[in-house]
Amino acid sequence: MMKLPDPVQKVVDNLAELPSIGPRQAVRLAFYLINEGPEDLKALSESVAGLAKIKVCTRCYFIHQNEGGLCDICANPARNTRIIMVVEKETDLLSLENTKKYTGRYFIIGQVPKTGFLEPWQKIRIASLAKSVKEELGGQADEIILAFNPTTLGDFQSSLLMKELASLAKRVSRLGRGLPTGGEIEFSDDETLGASLERRS
Amino acid sequence: MMKLPDPVQKVVDNLAELPSIGPRQAVRLAFYLINEGPEDLKALSESVAGLAKIKVCTRCYFIHQNEGGLCDICANPARNTRIIMVVEKETDLLSLENTKKYTGRYFIIGQVPKTGFLEPWQKIRIASLAKSVKEELGGQADEIILAFNPTTLGDFQSSLLMKELASLAKRVSRLGRGLPTGGEIEFSDDETLGASLERRS
Repeated sequence: MMKLPDPVQKVVDNLAELPSIGPRQAVRLAFYLINEGPEDLKALSESVAGLAKIKVCTRCYFIHQNEGGLCDICANPARNTRIIMVVEKETDLLSLENTKKYTGRYFIIGQVPKTGFLEPWQKIRIASLAKSVKEELGGQADEIILAFNPTTLGDFQSSLLMKELASLAKRVSRLGRGLPTGGEIEFSDDETLGASLERRS
Repeated sequence: MMKLPDPVQKVVDNLAELPSIGPRQAVRLAFYLINEGPEDLKALSESVAGLAKIKVCTRCYFIHQNEGGLCDICANPARNTRIIMVVEKETDLLSLENTKKYTGRYFIIGQVPKTGFLEPWQKIRIASLAKSVKEELGGQADEIILAFNPTTLGDFQSSLLMKELASLAKRVSRLGRGLPTGGEIEFSDDETLGASLERRS
């Protein structure tokens, strides 16, 4: 491949490190940015640098900009702190929060590796959850809800976390399985249909 | 949707403006960047800002970092300046240059709109090409090669440019059509097979 100027290659390398951006797309993006001109470059550069100001909640690891250590959800006295929903990603939290049906708090564990072994930083997060459950809730939460994807991998991740967290709550539950609203019975897979039968109400 | 902190929303908006990055992917990327930490943020931010130093060739509109106005290819005395290959994008130029089979120069016209009407800045580029052909080559290049994609849209773009550029070269050609190397006859479409028959050698 023809050598790109160093400043371009640097951007390409940095962009290609991002998830779901491949090396070819990184090259296309770099050329797009150059053609957009100095104002757009400045806007993107400064907004990325601005992310350094974002803090991470000391309790649930969601982002925030508050004075203290807690995010908006953890700092909200109207939320039930005795119910904890464990999610993989911030975007999962956003989707669940968007339902406006949940009034407990969250805990972001990060993407659980397919190997089933938690990363060291994830073990630290779990230790901090155990500490907060001990200090703030007297040792046990009322409920821990494991909100992993309804996939084979998600089920595996749930079963792993189930063991790790069993002692921290009176009840450890998982999100319900069944027919997705708007779906069609004819086109539902066996697993989903089976779950909808088992859990009929 | 739950409101994101302003600095996060800014990055999401800037990223979502980039080609082939959707709003959901922009949110995921923003969270990824926050979790990567200050050093990675600084590296990406500074590398993006560094693109402002990149210059665009006054003759072919490819990028460069040279003292003068010309890119490496245009400034190379070994290249035949009387043959001009018109490409849409910098990445097309890179792929063609990578073949090491072409010794002429290039001209980047930018993506021709599907409407068939050239953008004002594209008309300015063509005017500058006409000027350079007049001043540097005495009015006519030996050949202009139109290197558009072998698609219906690319054919349309070629026919448009053909008219605009006909007077600027003794010959206006297009890249050859036929069977792609490594392809299989059984799975080739009719157009490609037809072209391979017509242009057999």
